Order: sequence, then structure tokens, then C-alpha cells
Amino acid sequence: MKKIYTAFAFLFILVLSASSQQVASDSLFIRKIFDEALSRGHCYENLRILCANGPRLSGSAGAERAVKIMAKAMQNDGFKTVKLQPTMVPKWERGPNELCIIKTKEGQKKLNVCALGGSIGTGGKKLKARVVEIIRWSQLDSLKDELKGAIVFLNRPFDPTPIYTFSAYGACVDQRHAGASKVSKYGALAVLVRSMSHKIDENPHTGSMAYDSAFPKIPAMAISTADAEWLHKQIEQKVNCEAEISLSCKEYPDVLSHNVIGEIKGSEKEEIILVGGHLDAWDNGDGAHDDGAGCVQSMEALRLLAALGYKPKHTLRAVLFMNEENGLKGAKTYADSASKFNEKHIIAIESDRGGFSPRGFYVENSDNALDKLLAWKPLLEPYGIHDIKKGGGGADISPLKPFNTVLIGFVPDSQRYFDYHHAPSDKFEAINKRELELGAAAIAALIYLYDQYGF
Amino acid sequence: MKKIYTAFAFLFILVLSASSQQVASDSLFIRKIFDEALSRGHCYENLRILCANGPRLSGSAGAERAVKIMAKAMQNDGFKTVKLQPTMVPKWERGPNELCIIKTKEGQKKLNVCALGGSIGTGGKKLKARVVEIIRWSQLDSLKDELKGAIVFLNRPFDPTPIYTFSAYGACVDQRHAGASKVSKYGALAVLVRSMSHKIDENPHTGSMAYDSAFPKIPAMAISTADAEWLHKQIEQKVNCEAEISLSCKEYPDVLSHNVIGEIKGSEKEEIILVGGHLDAWDNGDGAHDDGAGCVQSMEALRLLAALGYKPKHTLRAVLFMNEENGLKGAKTYADSASKFNEKHIIAIESDRGGFSPRGFYVENSDNALDKLLAWKPLLEPYGIHDIKKGGGGADISPLKPFNTVLIGFVPDSQRYFDYHHAPSDKFEAINKRELELGAAAIAALIYLYDQYGF
Repeated sequence: MKKIYTAFAFLFILVLSASSQQVASDSLFIRKIFDEALSRGHCYENLRILCANGPRLSGSAGAERAVKIMAKAMQNDGFKTVKLQPTMVPKWERGPNELCIIKTKEGQKKLNVCALGGSIGTGGKKLKARVVEIIRWSQLDSLKDELKGAIVFLNRPFDPTPIYTFSAYGACVDQRHAGASKVSKYGALAVLVRSMSHKIDENPHTGSMAYDSAFPKIPAMAISTADAEWLHKQIEQKVNCEAEISLSCKEYPDVLSHNVIGEIKGSEKEEIILVGGHLDAWDNGDGAHDDGAGCVQSMEALRLLAALGYKPKHTLRAVLFMNEENGLKGAKTYADSASKFNEKHIIAIESDRGGFSPRGFYVENSDNALDKLLAWKPLLEPYGIHDIKKGGGGADISPLKPFNTVLIGFVPDSQRYFDYHHAPSDKFEAINKRELELGAAAIAALIYLYDQYGF
Repeated sequence: MKKIYTAFAFLFILVLSASSQQVASDSLFIRKIFDEALSRGHCYENLRILCANGPRLSGSAGAERAVKIMAKAMQNDGFKTVKLQPTMVPKWERGPNELCIIKTKEGQKKLNVCALGGSIGTGGKKLKARVVEIIRWSQLDSLKDELKGAIVFLNRPFDPTPIYTFSAYGACVDQRHAGASKVSKYGALAVLVRSMSHKIDENPHTGSMAYDSAFPKIPAMAISTADAEWLHKQIEQKVNCEAEISLSCKEYPDVLSHNVIGEIKGSEKEEIILVGGHLDAWDNGDGAHDDGAGCVQSMEALRLLAALGYKPKHTLRAVLFMNEENGLKGAKTYADSASKFNEKHIIAIESDRGGFSPRGFYVENSDNALDKLLAWKPLLEPYGIHDIKKGGGGADISPLKPFNTVLIGFVPDSQRYFDYHHAPSDKFEAINKRELELGAAAIAALIYLYDQYGF
């Protein structure tokens, strides 16, 4: 009996020791990932090249140049397999003309505005009407007589109190997305939407909107938060405001575009671990944080593993999706194709919350994968990765959900994101090199752990 | 017996329930602190006013204006007791002239330079000499024949791999602080020091230096990292480089200045909990992150508690120290006075690592205080405060260490700090309002917990 105890004790010690050696070797490998990213990273220079290319809204010539530039960058990064996956995408153009002048008896003020993505134009004319402000949807019914023939100003501001700023965005973005039809229902002529940002400045923030076919389509534009504050004050002081607006934006038939896919073949399994961002970006900035950062981090995560000589068990794919901003067509095409060709994606990770310092990962749909990740927290916390919980993965990977793919969102610090989101300020210069690189390394570490140990 | 068990069980449940009610009420109060900071915060506007005042190096007219501005701001914030504490400080002026031209046989290039704080000038003349690059101190002996009569270029770059960027700074700053005398020992005429930053750009970063009285004083200037990279390349390619430099900086006799102290009287104890930053800043920028942020956060931490009607047990003090950058005279005066008047400081917290998103707190000299803080981690982690460990408090509070004061440093995300540190880019515009406010709230939460529960 004593021998058996001794044997068990010995085995136990062996297992413990093997397990602590494993932890030590994982810890060492993750340190190497971060060292490589911070010392010899490619993602910052890749992002510089992407941003220098100019705007890249889906369907534009800039988007097609971006497809070629990033395919080339993947080849330069050492990806042996780089594919362009055709997908049809919408084509909407802002046009040269976006104007909003507010006239009061005191004088007039030209606001900082931009068309919302998907808006109709004003048909070469100027629309003039008095301005009615709406802060809560419940006001629509009580103000319905005033809304008819008016230009409606939707001015519900971001709640500053949620620490994770996407919560504030989520509670306001219905104004941008659905506001036009909500007021068109009452006979409004056009809509001015307060920009989706905490920051009070002169930047108008664009973003997608859609029409409800039950009501007439009306032009929709964003106004800067500083102008929204000014206009609110006029209205609060009972100043009669008349807006004069014009927009030249236009929808064209869908055109051909591409997802860009780089792959490292798995050494043991056919199953795929995917990491992606979206290559298209709104046309008024460089799309540096949204989502150039996610694209170059996805490529870099795989390059880092390859540069360290890591041979993945699973096939690893970096996917730069086209058309997240106004259609999600690339993501749908990708998931349809994966289903058709029976490609099993066990995990899909998305980076689409900006190129800021890593904070954590949100796991959308698997308690097992979340538990595994929580157990790895001691390996990740030295790199500032502490916020690990259930949460949204990301728009581009969402069409993989029906195929039981585990969806994971990379979560950087969110405080500055809406300063830049969909605004002219989303420039390459708004990116900090180290923050971007740390994000890429964090994602690479996550891929390494799931590739090694599954969930 | 059963009765006794029942009574004990009841008591146990009571204690547990009281304790969980306490946690719930702490959690609620901390949430209120953050809500107040993010919804009705004063620190961002206070910082705007401070930065608009212009440079405020110790001994300058700008520093004295800053003393008055911040004393006024404390009064506006509702501090009933606001004091100016006199302290003598050094007075060093950059002067109008800082120039470094590198001449090669190909032509010449004007570098982006600034005098290091405390450097002597070139006495109205230009110094001309060949440039010798030093990366490791061990090269000094092997290159000693070349150093005589040369202008020495100290070019050891930041190590990009430490996640906490102050480690990289700590491993390089000896070049700036002690480099002049180290090469003067070998007969060098002047020193050019690579700016203390990870970021490769055109900003020269100043900062303090000191002379070793054993060797002749020589002029010392910082050159931008982009210029350091260029100059390194020239030297690597065996291009002979001659530098022509001039500096007009000058030391004056010490002058009178002030610490600014705001106080909320304790309701139960004489003992003091101090929070502070430093009011002086280098003269080439706004000193927004270094350390305007720490000043306005210190004031705001106390204002937040007062705004919520909190009556502290201990006396709470916000101290804006004068002269951290080049002498620490204000901090020493403060500690001397505290000692003289028997003021017992139980805890001193410093915010002097920039106005970025909170990450944690470092406790310098008390395991008890650290253990207490670690136990409170669940209350703080929802606000991104996860990095709690033993570490440095801060320069301004360090003179309180001999009096057994527990020293605690507020630790925000460090990735961007050295982009701005001591550089012209350290402007108000480099501050994100939410990040600054979150830091103030984090500090207020810490003060609340120690005030309530001690350590």
C-alpha cells in the first residue's frame, strides 16, 4: 500500500512539475511575442502605407487600391498564401457638396457637417426649414405638429458615465441609424444628427444609416458636437432657427470588391483559427483606428508567430473584410464560402475597437473558451490584459456564429475611440506605435494559447 | 448547546451581512465618485486654464502666475483653506539661442535641439568640433583619444520591450543627467544627448542635468530622436561630422516661489492624507501631462469627495509642489515644515506619470497598505485599476518617507508618456478629457478607502 502511495505521490509531483514547466514555457514564449512586436514590429509601417493610400470606402477606387496594397503587404510579411476573395459591395458617394447654414434673426452660422452614409442628396436644391430639436423619442408624438415640414435636430448626447465607452455609443447610435425615417414618418424634410462622440469639438462624425421603406427618404447629416451644443443653446433660448441644407450624395449599383486573406497552414489540423479586421473605412478620414489598426494587427499577429518559428497546429488565417461599415457584404461572403467549402472555424477573433493599449478580450458564445481564457489570465496580465469576460466578438466575424465558431473581440482601452470614430481626425497620426504593437502581440498570444490547448 | 450554535451562526451571518453591505455601499460610493468626475468634472477645465498661462519653469514669471491661478482655482473648487507655502527655488533660463548645425562634406543640416535644464551656455560664441558617438559608457575608455576636443553624441536608445515605459527611461536617463561630466572628464567640449523617448520624431526633449564639480562644465543639449537616427547613420557610414553649436542658457540666483496647498479638515483625526503633483514644468511646452495633469487631479480628487458630501475622518490635503523638475525644493520645504510643525502624514499619493487611463497604484513602503489595497481590488477593477503592486511613489512625496508616511504612486497607462515628456508636444491638446477624469476619480476612490478603513 505504501508503495502505491509513493508511486501516486511521485506521479502527482511529475504532473505538477510538467504543468509548471509548461506555464514557464508559455510565459517565455508570450514574452518573445511581445519583444518581437515591440522591437521589430511591422504593423505600424503597414498602417502608415495603408493610411497614405487615401480614403477607402467600399466601392471606391481607394478601396480597390487598399486591397492590392494589403495583399502586397501580406506577401512582404512572408505569408505564402494570400488570396483575394471576390464580393459584391454597395457603392455610395458623398459628392462634393455638404452644407448646413443656420439662420437666426441675429445672423447666420455655417455648421461643420457631413452626410451620413447611405443618405440621399437634396437633388441639386437647397432645403430650407425651421429646426425642431428632439432629445428623446417620446417627444416625437407630443411635437408631431411641429415636425411636419421641419428639419429635425436629433440631439441625445453620449452618457459620459459608462467606463466602457461603446455602451454610450450603443445607447445613442439609433439616432444616426434610424433617425431619418423616424422623423420622416411625421413629415420632416431632413435630419441633423449630433455626432456620435463624447468629445466636444468641430469634427462631424459620419456612419451608416438606413431608411425604413414605409416612409419617404429624407436627407440625413451629422453635425459636430460643438455645433450641436451651440444649436441646442439657441433653441433653449427660444431663438427661431432656420436651416438651409444641401447634400450631393448618391447611391450607385453594387460593384465588385474583395476580402484579403492571408493563411498559414496548420501542421496537425484542418480547423481554422481566424483573426480579422475590416479594410473598408469611412471616406472622411484615414480609417486609422477604424479599422486600419485591426487589419494590420491581424496580419501582424500571424507574422509574429511565424517570425518566432512557431508551427501552428491549426490553420491560421488573417482576414481583411471588405464592407463592414455599410453592408457587411464581405463578412457574409466569407461565411457563405466557409460553409460551402466545409471550412470549420473553431475560433474567430476580431480587432475593431481601435489601436489602443490592450485591456482584454470579450468571449461571445462559449463558456468553455471563456473559462480557458480566464485560466490563462496570469500569463496575460503582465501585458495589461485584465478585462476578460463575456461580451461581443465583432461585426465581421458574426456571420460565423451559426457554425458554432467561438467569437472573440479584442478589447483595447476605449476612452479615446469615439474622439476619432468615423471622423476626419481618424488619421495615422492618432495612432501610438507602441499601443498598436501591444494589441497585435496580445492577439498573437491569444492565438498561440488556443492553438496549443484548445478549449 | 444548540442555542449557542444558533446564536453563533446568527452572529456570523450578521457579520457577513454587515460586511457585504459595507462592500455594496463602498461600491456604490465609488461609482458615485466616477459619475461625478465624468459628468461634472472640473479637472479638464482647470488644466485648460493652467496650460493657457504659458510656460512655468521654477523661478519664472509664468510659475508665479501659475501659483496664483491654481490658488484661485482651488477657491473656485470650494476649498475653504488654500495656502501658499514659500520656498526658494533655482532660476535657470534657456535664453533665445539654441543651435546645432552638423556639417559634412555633402552639406549641412540644422538639428532640432534644446538645452538641457541646468546646462551652461556657450558664452556668446559658437563651438565647433568633430562629433564622436557613444552608445555604451564602456566605449569612453576605448575612445578616449578621440573624445578630447570633440562634441560627444550620447545615443543609447530606449529599450522598446519593457511594457511599463518608465523602465526604459530609467535605463537611459543617466545620459541626460550625468552625461556632460562623464565626457568632460575626457576633455570633450560639449554633449548632444538623444532625446529620452521611444517615439521617433522631430521633438527635442529637455530635462534636468547636473555637473560633477570634479570636471569642467560643458554645454549640454538634447537632439530629437529623428535627428539622432540621422546622425547615427552618418557616423555609421563613416561620414565625418562637425557640429557647430551655441546655447544662451544661464543660471541665476535662487528666487522665492510657492507650493500651493488646499485642505479639507478631518472630522475625527489630525492625521493627514496628502495627494499631490508638481506645478512647475519645463519651459518648452505646456506641461500638460508633466505635471499639470497631476495637479488638477489632486485638486479634483478632494473636490469629488466634497461634492458628494463626504466628511473625511482624516485631514485631506491637495499639494501642488513647486520645483520637482530641477531641484525638488518645494517638496523638501513641505516635508521640513511638516516635521517642524509635527504634522503626521499617514499617506501621501502622487500623480506624476501623465493624465492617461488609470491602470493601478504602486505602494512604495508598506506591506500593510499594499495588502489593504489588494483586498480592495474588486472595488477598483471595474474602473480599469488592476495593476497594484510594490513600486515607486513619486519624487515630490519622497521627502516624507523618513517620517513613515506611506508613499503611493498613481499609475496610468504609460505607453504614450514619453511621446510628450519634457517636449514641445506636451500640450493641453495631448490630454484626453475622460482619461484625465478617470485618473482623478481613481485617486479619490483610493483616498476614500484609506480614509475609511486605514491600513
